[in-house]
Amino acid sequence: MKIAILGYGTVGSGVYEILQKKNLAKAISVKKIWSRPKKNIDIPNFCPDIDDIINDKEIELVVEVLGGIDVPFDLISRMLKSKKHVVTANKAVIARHYDELTNLAKENGVSLNFEASVGGGIPWIKNVELASRIDAISKCYGILNGTSNFILDTMLKENEDFGDVLKEAQDLGYAEADPSADIDGFDVLNKLIISARKAFNKKLDPDDFFVHSMKHITKDDIHYFKQKGHIVKYIGEITHDEGIISLHAVPETFVEATIPSNNNIASLEGQTIGTLKFYGQGAGKLPTANAVIQDILDISKNMSYLDTDNDENSVIIDTKQNHYTFIIRTNESVDANLIKETDGDYLITHPITLSDIKKQTQLKDALIVRVITQEDWHD
Amino acid sequence: MKIAILGYGTVGSGVYEILQKKNLAKAISVKKIWSRPKKNIDIPNFCPDIDDIINDKEIELVVEVLGGIDVPFDLISRMLKSKKHVVTANKAVIARHYDELTNLAKENGVSLNFEASVGGGIPWIKNVELASRIDAISKCYGILNGTSNFILDTMLKENEDFGDVLKEAQDLGYAEADPSADIDGFDVLNKLIISARKAFNKKLDPDDFFVHSMKHITKDDIHYFKQKGHIVKYIGEITHDEGIISLHAVPETFVEATIPSNNNIASLEGQTIGTLKFYGQGAGKLPTANAVIQDILDISKNMSYLDTDNDENSVIIDTKQNHYTFIIRTNESVDANLIKETDGDYLITHPITLSDIKKQTQLKDALIVRVITQEDWHD
Repeated sequence: MKIAILGYGTVGSGVYEILQKKNLAKAISVKKIWSRPKKNIDIPNFCPDIDDIINDKEIELVVEVLGGIDVPFDLISRMLKSKKHVVTANKAVIARHYDELTNLAKENGVSLNFEASVGGGIPWIKNVELASRIDAISKCYGILNGTSNFILDTMLKENEDFGDVLKEAQDLGYAEADPSADIDGFDVLNKLIISARKAFNKKLDPDDFFVHSMKHITKDDIHYFKQKGHIVKYIGEITHDEGIISLHAVPETFVEATIPSNNNIASLEGQTIGTLKFYGQGAGKLPTANAVIQDILDISKNMSYLDTDNDENSVIIDTKQNHYTFIIRTNESVDANLIKETDGDYLITHPITLSDIKKQTQLKDALIVRVITQEDWHD
Repeated sequence: MKIAILGYGTVGSGVYEILQKKNLAKAISVKKIWSRPKKNIDIPNFCPDIDDIINDKEIELVVEVLGGIDVPFDLISRMLKSKKHVVTANKAVIARHYDELTNLAKENGVSLNFEASVGGGIPWIKNVELASRIDAISKCYGILNGTSNFILDTMLKENEDFGDVLKEAQDLGYAEADPSADIDGFDVLNKLIISARKAFNKKLDPDDFFVHSMKHITKDDIHYFKQKGHIVKYIGEITHDEGIISLHAVPETFVEATIPSNNNIASLEGQTIGTLKFYGQGAGKLPTANAVIQDILDISKNMSYLDTDNDENSVIIDTKQNHYTFIIRTNESVDANLIKETDGDYLITHPITLSDIKKQTQLKDALIVRVITQEDWHD
């Protein structure tokens, strides 16, 4: 199969590099690479005109790894309309334009795959699809952002403060100059919106989430929780109706508590399979490129993981209102009805709903940590 | 697709039960169930004569979940020769007769799938196959036996001794009346022999392994390691040339140290993907049945995960001699050249080879624990 790659940054060059391996090059050949005219790097098979790719009938599949939203959305749409399969790692575009793009792919009889958009190199999307062939999935959760995990893991192990570790992460290239997407939860939000489509066949909107930044945590907070036997992690969780993205205090004997450095772990809870967890590198050149190539191979072999009608599965899940326990540190006042007890600087809530906590808008600069117990996540 | 099931014990009845779900029953129908004539239970579509299944042209696929070796081997062979696909959970048969059975399937143009044979409900085999489409895999390791993990986890958390927890596990149905396969490593041995075929395209023999029982551990040992920051787990690991199955002392901050109860975790290390880990229930009625049904669905959809020639991948791995550090507690004498230092009752070896430790045959009743460091397992 002949393909084109749009974008020759970290992931794009990784895709090209891995595809030079002899066993892969036999099956997949990169005919053209288009890139924004910005760097003087040597791009193999460089093609400056996007129309040359659109009009090239030999090119059956296009990899989009540009970054951004509007240009990639436009280009993905044009490729699908030209009846070319598309593989993308772009979580923002997929989360925002899911219906439009999947419909466009369907109308044109081509595939749109985006394994690399959630969990980087972890084969999460396809394993969710496979699980949902058989099971109703009731919940997904995990550490889905490597930068925030690197920051928390380093704060814990090196006894450093948030700002210092963030700067270190930026110097190492783990964190962007503007770290907001990683530390304020919007990167995880996109990944969970995509996961909800695959796991529950449901459209969750940003409004269905409680999203709270990790940036208010100090090393004193981390030690407070450690003394209580908890490790603080930045975690997202979705059920069929709602989602939460916030700091979580995880018992130190739980798998999630041990996830090191910038790694990711994603879990699903299924009816008959129980809990499955998938761990790996959630970002990085070669792992992300590997996930992109898995999609290319699947399309080239005409493999589709989810083709059983799983509507029945979404129906049988009880949609009950979930309750969450939070620990809050703030200078603002908090609705006294929500608070069960106080421990020094920390307020501990009763189990409350996400609408309860969302109403406390004065807490936007507070430390808010959800507390996890054995009842929240089963083995 | 019409199928038959051979065996109506825990897994067989689980397969039947899940297949009654509406979305699955549309695609897969259980026409006949054959079982050993032993129990007076009500078996749906019971078929007492195996030839009725062999001669039934409508039956395209047969699930073998009988247990044992000789009878299942004979029946799997006959089904494949009758050009019926076979799905089995039988690790002993697959490990022992891998070449014969896979060749028989190939000759007859049918599939032989055995996802449930390793890691129960964890989608391990197919994810190894998918990873090896792209990567050379250098190593696989993990907690692959739920019974031994239940025993060690309970000894640690309840401060109980080995014999008491084993009896408890037997009462709960987690351990067999004869627990040898679980606690002496032979169950894990079969699983790793199968994994080596899939991950490396290599045949490992039992002689290529150092296999040492877990049964010599006491609660004092567990506390000794805990004080050093290690959790003791029963773990198997394979590289391209050799394997080890023994107690392992895992740093308590490692993922493997947290695996609770009778759960499993399996890891692979790939060239570009890095480390992937897969966690779930390694046994039990519904998880194992779920894995069997995943295989049935794959075959019914003609899905094959590994169809790239990955011979190149096996070539490029450096086959170097690995070294392992052990801690030994014994009344026997040990070759002084192997020992680096002594800590109370415990002898700590230099990094030594598996042939070094295998030569110490006088240690068959000793406690032998491999020590894991950051250099052994990468993130």
